[in-house]
Amino acid sequence: MNVSRRAQDIQASPIRKLKPYADAAKARGTKIFHLNIGDPDIPAPQPVIDTFRNWSQPVLAYGPAQGFLELRQAVTRYFAKYGIPLDPDEVLITTGGSEAIHFTFSVLGDVGDEIIVPEPYYTNYNGYAAFAGLKIVPLPLSVEDGFRLPPAAALEARITPKTKAVLLCSPNNPTGTVYTPEELERVVAVVRKRGLFLVGDEVYKEFVYDGLKHKSILEFPDIKDRVIVVDSISKRYSCCGARIGMVITRNKDVYAALLKFAQARLCPPSVEQHAALAAYNMPMEYFDGVRAEYDKRRNILYEGLKDIPGIVIHKPEGAFYVIVRLPVKDIEHFAVWLLQDFSLDGKTVMIAPAPGFYSTPSLGVDEARIAYVVNGRELAEAIRVFKAGLRKYLAVHG
Amino acid sequence: MNVSRRAQDIQASPIRKLKPYADAAKARGTKIFHLNIGDPDIPAPQPVIDTFRNWSQPVLAYGPAQGFLELRQAVTRYFAKYGIPLDPDEVLITTGGSEAIHFTFSVLGDVGDEIIVPEPYYTNYNGYAAFAGLKIVPLPLSVEDGFRLPPAAALEARITPKTKAVLLCSPNNPTGTVYTPEELERVVAVVRKRGLFLVGDEVYKEFVYDGLKHKSILEFPDIKDRVIVVDSISKRYSCCGARIGMVITRNKDVYAALLKFAQARLCPPSVEQHAALAAYNMPMEYFDGVRAEYDKRRNILYEGLKDIPGIVIHKPEGAFYVIVRLPVKDIEHFAVWLLQDFSLDGKTVMIAPAPGFYSTPSLGVDEARIAYVVNGRELAEAIRVFKAGLRKYLAVHG
Repeated sequence: MNVSRRAQDIQASPIRKLKPYADAAKARGTKIFHLNIGDPDIPAPQPVIDTFRNWSQPVLAYGPAQGFLELRQAVTRYFAKYGIPLDPDEVLITTGGSEAIHFTFSVLGDVGDEIIVPEPYYTNYNGYAAFAGLKIVPLPLSVEDGFRLPPAAALEARITPKTKAVLLCSPNNPTGTVYTPEELERVVAVVRKRGLFLVGDEVYKEFVYDGLKHKSILEFPDIKDRVIVVDSISKRYSCCGARIGMVITRNKDVYAALLKFAQARLCPPSVEQHAALAAYNMPMEYFDGVRAEYDKRRNILYEGLKDIPGIVIHKPEGAFYVIVRLPVKDIEHFAVWLLQDFSLDGKTVMIAPAPGFYSTPSLGVDEARIAYVVNGRELAEAIRVFKAGLRKYLAVHG
Repeated sequence: MNVSRRAQDIQASPIRKLKPYADAAKARGTKIFHLNIGDPDIPAPQPVIDTFRNWSQPVLAYGPAQGFLELRQAVTRYFAKYGIPLDPDEVLITTGGSEAIHFTFSVLGDVGDEIIVPEPYYTNYNGYAAFAGLKIVPLPLSVEDGFRLPPAAALEARITPKTKAVLLCSPNNPTGTVYTPEELERVVAVVRKRGLFLVGDEVYKEFVYDGLKHKSILEFPDIKDRVIVVDSISKRYSCCGARIGMVITRNKDVYAALLKFAQARLCPPSVEQHAALAAYNMPMEYFDGVRAEYDKRRNILYEGLKDIPGIVIHKPEGAFYVIVRLPVKDIEHFAVWLLQDFSLDGKTVMIAPAPGFYSTPSLGVDEARIAYVVNGRELAEAIRVFKAGLRKYLAVHG
């Protein structure tokens, strides 16, 4: 009477491994700056909150499995503003970006099939690959060059007869890198040549800085049948708790398969879908303020860290994370030490050890992901505490 | 570049197969009484709606993967009223009962493992079995005796070395049967003897009639480590669109495994969890009114159908469905005919052909599931139209 091998194999979230240490620190009265998670402190847009506050439907019925048509239409209007034409029947609403990944992986392949993902990558891909029995084949990138994509040959070398797809996340969690049109074109050419699917995780689309533009994989017409985009309102509209995401694909077979999985779970949350509709109906200027706020934090973080002796850091171009190399031997040991053995003026910092974002063993052991989702004043103080912690740690363990 | 075999194998929902015919009928101006789906017309409780209307949290952050503690505590208070002691750490909140089934199946076994389910059964078990690679081994029941459970030997005969669990849904969708304590004890004894898990789908717990009491599989202390209950607020509190369900288990290994799957999808919808909390905080008297309403409809349906020549019907004891045998050769043909070729005073009826609830081929070909989730006046009129339709169909195709 044991649980399944699937359940035994699935990794517990690496971020959550530190939680007992954080709980103990909090119990001692230590304030923790959470630079370890991407849970924005930005309020949801007022029209989202107003949707709840003005709710007047007495019956909370099931909605359509693919999501409300009005919401899917609003999503197509959003993409039209980027010159990306979509039909509402090419958008399938999911319960968060998580379910979008889950459905996509379940459609892409069967047990033993492979999907190539540049690493470091978003940890939860592992959970959904485990659900579907897919093997993630990592394509290692390096902090040294800011996690740029390698030449096409490096990608092609990882393709086997079992390879079904390549997955690109841009703007990237956890690295903060935004792939250039040339980098995307390089992958698109391989995908086209080798007959693969290309999956894009574009949930951070709106968060690009320095006047950069995000190019979507939906903008390559000659592979339009091979493209599947997973998306979400969680970060875009600061609605993480609402659990509304979507899959976008112009491939009718893929859409039909996604829809069967969607029907099995009946529908996404209905009230929250109306909230998402209110979000997508906002003018694009809404993003200016949020983007400027993250940009400010990005600058505080980068300026605060870049002069640490021995650090390797590239200024992130998008999302709200960066992966840095630190002059430590074992980042997990350092992360635990910060929580367990250190505080400055009753404060300490929680970071996400990077090995959780790599699947190649031994990679990332001296790297950490740092998220800038706390406000500028807190972030500046967090950096002061972090630097003091690192200095003290190196004095003891360096 | 094909979709996965998993996606090709998963059955499209049998109820949805009739949708094009229903859409065409509606387009012709025909009113359709939906006796085919279990989507209640009962308004959500006012405290649920008030939760939305009074919403005041500006940041919609991720919640805990296992659900808010306050909600899990409220659930334990609900069960305590039935004399079922539970700890909040034995309750894991999910995105609907659907996800509860999904996680449970994923924890129970690996590809090729088996789970025994009395048939007819809730169709969506198939979808989640397909996700997990589990094989559902049906234990056929019969409309003739009101779908009572067979002797233990019939259940034991279906156990193989690959069997991981038995699943019981009571009150039952689609049959309306409520298993007696003796029937449950029979299955419990087999589960104990053969070292299996026992999964209970108890989402219709509150809907039992004629003074019957629902006995939960959580009430068998000597198999407490083998019991997993999937539950939901969808029917209990008429909140189908809210997508809040849960898994309940006292087995710590199972709970830990469920939690890993839960962490991969981050959290259930947060606003809707607060709505669920408001629902569970209501007094138990809330159910009296809803139960009385369904009981009234049940009587209208049963009295309206029982005298149809050739019908086999047992008065349902719970939930809001009944499976009836009709004097037709091919229930799907009849169901399509009702939508396509028949109307009375501009009205017709949609029923759910029972073969979709059986996995043994050829079973249920003259049976239909009828749901009583429309109000009494509509239901009476639906029955009048249905009887006229059946008479006319038999005159043409009998």
